[in-house]
Amino acid sequence: MTEPKPTNAPDLPLEIEDEGARHARKMAKKKAARDKIMATKEGEKGLIIVLTGPGKGKSSSGFGMILRSIAHGMPCAVVQFIKGAWSTGERTLIETHFPELCRFYAMGEGFTWETQDKARDIAAARRGWEQAKALIRDPDVRMVLLDEINIAIRYEYLPISEILEFLKNEKPPMTHVVLTGRNAAEPLIELADLVTEMGAVKHPFRAGIKAQKGVEF
Amino acid sequence: MTEPKPTNAPDLPLEIEDEGARHARKMAKKKAARDKIMATKEGEKGLIIVLTGPGKGKSSSGFGMILRSIAHGMPCAVVQFIKGAWSTGERTLIETHFPELCRFYAMGEGFTWETQDKARDIAAARRGWEQAKALIRDPDVRMVLLDEINIAIRYEYLPISEILEFLKNEKPPMTHVVLTGRNAAEPLIELADLVTEMGAVKHPFRAGIKAQKGVEF
Repeated sequence: MTEPKPTNAPDLPLEIEDEGARHARKMAKKKAARDKIMATKEGEKGLIIVLTGPGKGKSSSGFGMILRSIAHGMPCAVVQFIKGAWSTGERTLIETHFPELCRFYAMGEGFTWETQDKARDIAAARRGWEQAKALIRDPDVRMVLLDEINIAIRYEYLPISEILEFLKNEKPPMTHVVLTGRNAAEPLIELADLVTEMGAVKHPFRAGIKAQKGVEF
Repeated sequence: MTEPKPTNAPDLPLEIEDEGARHARKMAKKKAARDKIMATKEGEKGLIIVLTGPGKGKSSSGFGMILRSIAHGMPCAVVQFIKGAWSTGERTLIETHFPELCRFYAMGEGFTWETQDKARDIAAARRGWEQAKALIRDPDVRMVLLDEINIAIRYEYLPISEILEFLKNEKPPMTHVVLTGRNAAEPLIELADLVTEMGAVKHPFRAGIKAQKGVEF
């Protein structure tokens, strides 16, 4: 997509060309360029989307994509690998208003540094992944959000090779799979079609502000 | 927030300390450190949140935050400065299901390179900003999303000084304001409490995939 640029650098004196006319000419040129680029984008496919990085916005973006899918009437599903990333309010909203369009599974038993039981965490991650595979294989489900799965991969609770293999060979071509969590594995980034790295330019925790309703959860 | 690290670097031979016990000990330490940090986060305040950068996820994250606010029963509002950033489906979803919790205003007349009429764009941005001010001042509204306002600022359709002045002096202390769009102005980033820069590591347009339902809109 073409990056919009400010149009305040005049290349003709205002006496010669009226500012409004100049703006219209520039914008028409920009639009033509953009239309030309967009016309080459013909393909449609189910995307592997990775939302990673230390910045805030990974889970809220995943939540937004699920609601966007619901808004289009496209059946979707969420598997939550780490408890606490979403509030129960968000889950309740989906389950109350859109039970026919979105299935929700919370597999995590809490952040790993809160459970202190590696065997239990591994078992929970495994159950989550088995559920995820069934949902991705289901031809009726158009988008599956694997929330915080990158954490489970990074702790080696799930073998990355198995996940890559499945996404490559068994994901139906039109199904979107969204994988979130910081520190996404490099081979997953290589496989993905769309990757956003969320950088934390500023985080309110640094200023002594605690996690707040509507923002962090 | 403490960055979770993989725990697969043994510092004692397995014969001396059982792997499960070692994991539990490490995680207990991590949890204690995290609890200590979180205990210092006492403050609550309405945040100025900026979601910027070229990567995908700014609008879906904003949409997710609005839905999160709705999920908590917190009244909120959206002012959309550029048409097309959200699909009508998303707006319909909010207006159909949550009319009592979220007000929605679409002020833009289309992307600026599609209208080619600077005076009309400026007038639309101005109407959007006047609406935004009224919503932010309203003590019942807990979160206001100014979607793609950064584009209007960058094109100088809205004076950044006026926006900074208002956010500094007139925003009620407990109201969250979320400003999205790439190329956020530097003084806005300085003023903000939370800033996420979304980097485009990979974008499907580059691979010839067109904008798709549920992903881009």
